[in-house]
Amino acid sequence: MQERDHLYERTIRSEQIYDGKIIKVKVDEVLLPNGKTGKREIVHHQGAVAVLPLTDEGKLVVVRQFRKPLERTIVELPAGKLEPGEDPLACAKRELAEETGYQAEQFTHLSSFYTSPGFADELLHLYVATGLRPGAVRPDEDEFVEVLALSLPEAKALHERGEICDAKTVLALFAWENRVLKERG
Amino acid sequence: MQERDHLYERTIRSEQIYDGKIIKVKVDEVLLPNGKTGKREIVHHQGAVAVLPLTDEGKLVVVRQFRKPLERTIVELPAGKLEPGEDPLACAKRELAEETGYQAEQFTHLSSFYTSPGFADELLHLYVATGLRPGAVRPDEDEFVEVLALSLPEAKALHERGEICDAKTVLALFAWENRVLKERG
Repeated sequence: MQERDHLYERTIRSEQIYDGKIIKVKVDEVLLPNGKTGKREIVHHQGAVAVLPLTDEGKLVVVRQFRKPLERTIVELPAGKLEPGEDPLACAKRELAEETGYQAEQFTHLSSFYTSPGFADELLHLYVATGLRPGAVRPDEDEFVEVLALSLPEAKALHERGEICDAKTVLALFAWENRVLKERG
Repeated sequence: MQERDHLYERTIRSEQIYDGKIIKVKVDEVLLPNGKTGKREIVHHQGAVAVLPLTDEGKLVVVRQFRKPLERTIVELPAGKLEPGEDPLACAKRELAEETGYQAEQFTHLSSFYTSPGFADELLHLYVATGLRPGAVRPDEDEFVEVLALSLPEAKALHERGEICDAKTVLALFAWENRVLKERG
């Protein structure tokens, strides 16, 4: 990879800790640039997609769902995990339809980013979906969501109140506001 | 918490998988809203801060560092983990100084968000730092970073090339552009 990079940390030993349904966990012992050794705790995740769906009326379609790590419900972009080998765009179309019922005429890639590169390799692909047409909701068997459509001020107010509080959705709010600011010239 | 919320997932059983330096991992068996049971894999993280440092010349100060989960170096906002009980603002000042050498006259809270609420509880507090004054870099013992200062077009180009590729930094680029668009009126 980047063996010759002077910041590179070579793996000396790797221990698998957990092999789950969503995540795998390992601890690597690494050789640091100063010649000492260190431990790196690493969560492997297969990656995910999220969709920023904008209606013809300029509203953002979001879902409210319970998040066990937070022990509460939050309001987020429609999103989901990639199946092994799945094309991110196909996954985005599937997740939007499953969670919100919407089909979209246009999907535009906005950005792909690692959610927390200090300890996890989860890569999230974010698409803007426009030309939305409603349809039937088909969530996963263990997924329970409510669908909302928010104006930009409504979405910003939900962020202020802490109901919109995850990285991909906050990122999407800034991206959406930029789009609005640029359209206004 | 939200026991009466119809989306709530009550814990039936919880199994600790790993108790590490940076993360803890557990698997909860939960009662789903449809009466069935499900498993939730949960990574606990103590939380973190990130700083969006803008120089008087309108440049963004970032750090290049190796990220073991990605097996490569990436360019990111200065950031770091919260110590137990540490005030996020104090942590932001400490991390900015340690990683970049800069002291800042003003710190403004921009947003706090969960990096990946599907499997992790890591909460990241993001501050804008202005009125920057250079000083000596004092990184952690196992931390090796290079400091860069980027214009907005340079930062967007690094994102296009995949060198800026993590949620907090991409979010910061959109927030920074937002600020620039609003200043231009």
